[in-house]
Amino acid sequence: MGEPATKKAKTADPELDAACIETIGFLSVDQVQAANSGHPGAPLGMATMAYALWSKIMRYNPKNAKWINRDRFVLSNGHSCALQYSMLYLTGYERPTLDDLKQFRQLDSVTAGHPENELLDAVEVSTGPLGSGISNAVGLAMAAEHMAAEFNEEGFPIIDNHTYVFCGDGCMQEGIASEACSMAGHQKLGNLIVLYDDNHITIDGDTSCAFTEDVTKRFEAYGWHVLSVENGNSRDPTELIEAIEAAKACTDKPSFIRVKTVIGYGAKKQGTGGVHGAPLGVDEIKRMKEELGLDGDKTFEVPENVLSHMREAQTRGEEAEAEWTSMFEKYKAKFPEKAAEFERRIARKLPEGVFDKLPKWTPEDKALATRASSGKVLNAMADAIPELVGGSADLTGSNSTALANATDFQPGARDGRYFRFGVREHGMSAMCNGLAAYGSLIPFGATFLVFAGYMLGSVRLSALSGFQVLYILTHDSCGVGEDGPTHIPIETLATLRAIPNLTVFRPADATEVAGSYKAALLRQHGPSAFALTRQGVPNLAGSDAEKVALGAYTVAPVPDGSKPKIIIVGTGSEVQLAVAAAKALVDEGIPAAAVSMPCWELFEEQSKTYQEEVFVKGVPVLGVEAGCTQGWAKYVHYQHGINTFGKSGPGGKVMEHFGFTEENVLGLAKKLLERYKDVEAPALIDAHTLM
Amino acid sequence: MGEPATKKAKTADPELDAACIETIGFLSVDQVQAANSGHPGAPLGMATMAYALWSKIMRYNPKNAKWINRDRFVLSNGHSCALQYSMLYLTGYERPTLDDLKQFRQLDSVTAGHPENELLDAVEVSTGPLGSGISNAVGLAMAAEHMAAEFNEEGFPIIDNHTYVFCGDGCMQEGIASEACSMAGHQKLGNLIVLYDDNHITIDGDTSCAFTEDVTKRFEAYGWHVLSVENGNSRDPTELIEAIEAAKACTDKPSFIRVKTVIGYGAKKQGTGGVHGAPLGVDEIKRMKEELGLDGDKTFEVPENVLSHMREAQTRGEEAEAEWTSMFEKYKAKFPEKAAEFERRIARKLPEGVFDKLPKWTPEDKALATRASSGKVLNAMADAIPELVGGSADLTGSNSTALANATDFQPGARDGRYFRFGVREHGMSAMCNGLAAYGSLIPFGATFLVFAGYMLGSVRLSALSGFQVLYILTHDSCGVGEDGPTHIPIETLATLRAIPNLTVFRPADATEVAGSYKAALLRQHGPSAFALTRQGVPNLAGSDAEKVALGAYTVAPVPDGSKPKIIIVGTGSEVQLAVAAAKALVDEGIPAAAVSMPCWELFEEQSKTYQEEVFVKGVPVLGVEAGCTQGWAKYVHYQHGINTFGKSGPGGKVMEHFGFTEENVLGLAKKLLERYKDVEAPALIDAHTLM
Repeated sequence: MGEPATKKAKTADPELDAACIETIGFLSVDQVQAANSGHPGAPLGMATMAYALWSKIMRYNPKNAKWINRDRFVLSNGHSCALQYSMLYLTGYERPTLDDLKQFRQLDSVTAGHPENELLDAVEVSTGPLGSGISNAVGLAMAAEHMAAEFNEEGFPIIDNHTYVFCGDGCMQEGIASEACSMAGHQKLGNLIVLYDDNHITIDGDTSCAFTEDVTKRFEAYGWHVLSVENGNSRDPTELIEAIEAAKACTDKPSFIRVKTVIGYGAKKQGTGGVHGAPLGVDEIKRMKEELGLDGDKTFEVPENVLSHMREAQTRGEEAEAEWTSMFEKYKAKFPEKAAEFERRIARKLPEGVFDKLPKWTPEDKALATRASSGKVLNAMADAIPELVGGSADLTGSNSTALANATDFQPGARDGRYFRFGVREHGMSAMCNGLAAYGSLIPFGATFLVFAGYMLGSVRLSALSGFQVLYILTHDSCGVGEDGPTHIPIETLATLRAIPNLTVFRPADATEVAGSYKAALLRQHGPSAFALTRQGVPNLAGSDAEKVALGAYTVAPVPDGSKPKIIIVGTGSEVQLAVAAAKALVDEGIPAAAVSMPCWELFEEQSKTYQEEVFVKGVPVLGVEAGCTQGWAKYVHYQHGINTFGKSGPGGKVMEHFGFTEENVLGLAKKLLERYKDVEAPALIDAHTLM
Repeated sequence: MGEPATKKAKTADPELDAACIETIGFLSVDQVQAANSGHPGAPLGMATMAYALWSKIMRYNPKNAKWINRDRFVLSNGHSCALQYSMLYLTGYERPTLDDLKQFRQLDSVTAGHPENELLDAVEVSTGPLGSGISNAVGLAMAAEHMAAEFNEEGFPIIDNHTYVFCGDGCMQEGIASEACSMAGHQKLGNLIVLYDDNHITIDGDTSCAFTEDVTKRFEAYGWHVLSVENGNSRDPTELIEAIEAAKACTDKPSFIRVKTVIGYGAKKQGTGGVHGAPLGVDEIKRMKEELGLDGDKTFEVPENVLSHMREAQTRGEEAEAEWTSMFEKYKAKFPEKAAEFERRIARKLPEGVFDKLPKWTPEDKALATRASSGKVLNAMADAIPELVGGSADLTGSNSTALANATDFQPGARDGRYFRFGVREHGMSAMCNGLAAYGSLIPFGATFLVFAGYMLGSVRLSALSGFQVLYILTHDSCGVGEDGPTHIPIETLATLRAIPNLTVFRPADATEVAGSYKAALLRQHGPSAFALTRQGVPNLAGSDAEKVALGAYTVAPVPDGSKPKIIIVGTGSEVQLAVAAAKALVDEGIPAAAVSMPCWELFEEQSKTYQEEVFVKGVPVLGVEAGCTQGWAKYVHYQHGINTFGKSGPGGKVMEHFGFTEENVLGLAKKLLERYKDVEAPALIDAHTLM
């Protein structure tokens, strides 16, 4: 922030500007044409925007894509990624190379059909699902504000980067963006600058068919600083540069620059949906090039003077980072502890011994809802791990996510670590992705488990992007009670378990909550979700925080150590029923064991030997979980669950209604024993093992 | 629309007004107190709003909750349902009774913790998940406009009802509402009137912590007619009545009335989060009643004059409906065909013989993407079923949902049946729920399968509310290709299959597409989803439209009719691989059969005998589906799927990368045969049968 508008940025060579802009456009459409797949229209429409921003404004170092104080760039209309790849190549990043551009959208190339942060260092967040990138950017901007507040000292602006976003009409229509942009306005994020590619075209045609609102007025209503650029396709970038400089000068509001452009600028079908999502064709590209006096038969052509001008970004970037490094060295000398802490965070090393601070419980402690023990564990971890930041979508009390020793992150209080996300689940998840993408924070976001369905698009992107986001999801079964079916998750655990690279924990008690947090905090390359009870659960004698990492374990073995005749597996609040029913069977002289299975994904990572230690070959297994039964057939012979929607009533009664009582589970166990009295139960894990 | 502001509505008795408003408030807090659970704050804050609307404005008939031309009321802040239950009782609906109010939030009572349309006739849509109700209301309002355009004749306003919404700050923050309200503004829905309970309190406290945007300006930006009422808690409803009348007078824009209220009005803790979600306490309610000169010890007390005044709603309603019925009789005489068609639609009877019009395909027809055959089937059905209306979230071409013989629904073109939903998936789903809730339309909504994650909250509500909505979800696997992992569904089929009362179809070819539509159109009490390919698939020799209704069937039996040694089951585009691999095995002399399983839910409804006809006891089953394997262990011994995210590249190559080739499937089949060479494969369905 506070960086002066830099007049030197303007070039004195209009022809060179034009050549650069044209090269950006053609390099992009050549990629799409070579792939015979992709989106040429937006790159042509946004070429001047890209040139203005990357060549004249943005601070980044192509030689070190991960420089912590770089300006962040997010291409929210990710389908126009050919443009981003062109910029990365032209400004001199190691990847993509020119050959990479020629491999656009090919299997195993880094130039994927939408920008993927796992493939290219310079891509901050994976975009494509519309509205998501701009919402991530709000998180990136909040992260910068928070890091600045934590680490900057007088004369040492260690963190003062901006976050820039390109977005289109699609992003403007998505509710996720409305949520995040309302939040950005509330938070007065002066370091966030959005360039809206206002081209009036979406896939269905002119936006007049569905989208006639006054977008700039809406952003004013959110509290943004709003600017307009009327000719976004001018080959003279001055108006754009001035607008972005004016945006930078406004430090107490996010800026929204509406840039009027023509989609597919220069093509015959410019300004129509016809240039949006299909290659322009070899002949048309040839014609366009020739119209500008270029050789129409050459593709992927970058004039020498254009490349050398664009590659000045390397020198600018190296100088900028060198200047920063020299400042940081001085800072290090003056504030060695802060500097060390800063470096620890960037390296994503947890502080020493944090897990020693996990609270412990014994069976003598009184019953506690796992949302409540989560609150205690979260607080202990937040005290020990300052980079743990986050909040709730307006359910702080219900989710037990209040942090006793932290204040709210607000305008004028940027050192706050608690985020009041508002009633905005999807935006929260996307903002958490942005907070994680910054590279030095571990964000958490909380809501009711059932409302995962309101934010699933972004939870998926946490997983796809490998972001360590902790989702604290309370009220995890019909134990919710009175709020009824709209608030009772049935399918939600299955929903979350199905997402690749998302680790889902449903701890049985406080001890397992602690173990779940530990496993999730150690899992740096993906998100975790905790499904937590509203209602109290006892602290089980056999529960084990360390064994959560195994995914499932025998929480109540047969007392005499003999092989069980039946195994009852539960998760979360139903483990107590598994334990009680197993005990009742043992009391009747039937060897029975209970298994707690807090995490499917971690169990799947174990050896088959261990898996068959837990689910012993030939022993019938009864499962108990107050949710849908989908997926359980892999482990159990009969699953007692709920495959209809829930009911409104006191939690205990609703649980009883659906048969989640010790008596019913015991009865089911006896039926299962009877069922396999004379035949051996199929060894399910073995039965499904092929390779 | 165009109904004149009715001056007679104003009462001349201010004391009676006040008594009614107080009774509404106390009857609501008494419910919450009796249940010792619920939300007293909003009902107290909105009591005057409710009184003004229900007693002085809204047209409804308590004696016939389902009168088709009734005004619709949606309580978008569903947690304040005690208020709605009070109104329904006071105005004289059959249910809830006073006893029902005393059973608030108890198991099996109709007065559930949030309003449920399946429990009370007068509840139009189930609300609770915030932002959802107001978005449903946009659909309800569009449905009324469309029905009016289709059926009204000069002098015969058969349909001219309004849709009224109460909503709170939470609804205003949710992105789903932003999407739908932007659409409502675009559509100039003059029949939609929203009363915004602007009380500045959400669960986390004052809205100043997270929500400081200018809401009224935002709605102006959407193109709404915006009004304000400063004292929403006045015991004189005049200002509110006038505002609503002014809203009704504006017929070319939806109206947004910001009503400034105090949450928990009258309670000591009024205006704070303390009155939001917990009972006020017996003593406090007593104090409040006594302060107003009432007997503090009496609960559920309705003064005689209040009840008789409120119950005038019955007479008003009966008169209004009688007037309408008399008009409809005349309409019937003058326009018998239209009247018959109107009655058919209201009765939700499909036209005779519609399924005769389903297109047919043979193996000789060229390969066709199932999204393309869906387009043909949809068009055939839309031609035959005029109540089939809908559209796409800006992916009309990609989703193949364009209707050749229908125009767009737009302002000035209300007879249009094709809805341009914009890039608004969640809003689309919620609007479809509203279209379905109106009672005479079958809506469809389309997007890419992967973006089900953007709208899951509302898809869940389609299922929970029993609304017949058709979700057309194309680009259903890594066959999507170049667009890459953000656009490739992996977990999405599992996600949808896990939702109770949602029927998920993944047809193998054009013939099965036709069968899927038939099954979905016959299923009136819940939504269906079609997962459709982007890429072409052959028309299979053994596919059968009628057998889709069985969920799964043998598409390629062993040619000589003998028992197979292996069964290969696939869904969608992978059925061709199952068939090809089975054929290759047969060619090698190994009896093998292929099964197509377009719909799990329908298969689960079949007898165990039929199920074991398809998956023959003791025969190893190999499954093939280009998505995550979750849930398949119930049917197969080995499932070939994808449990990581997808990749960008040409579709065929990505399919090949993940092993979806005939060769690989054949290889897996041989491994499975080898695995069960000497032992019988466990009979999985039987193994999981307990009861």
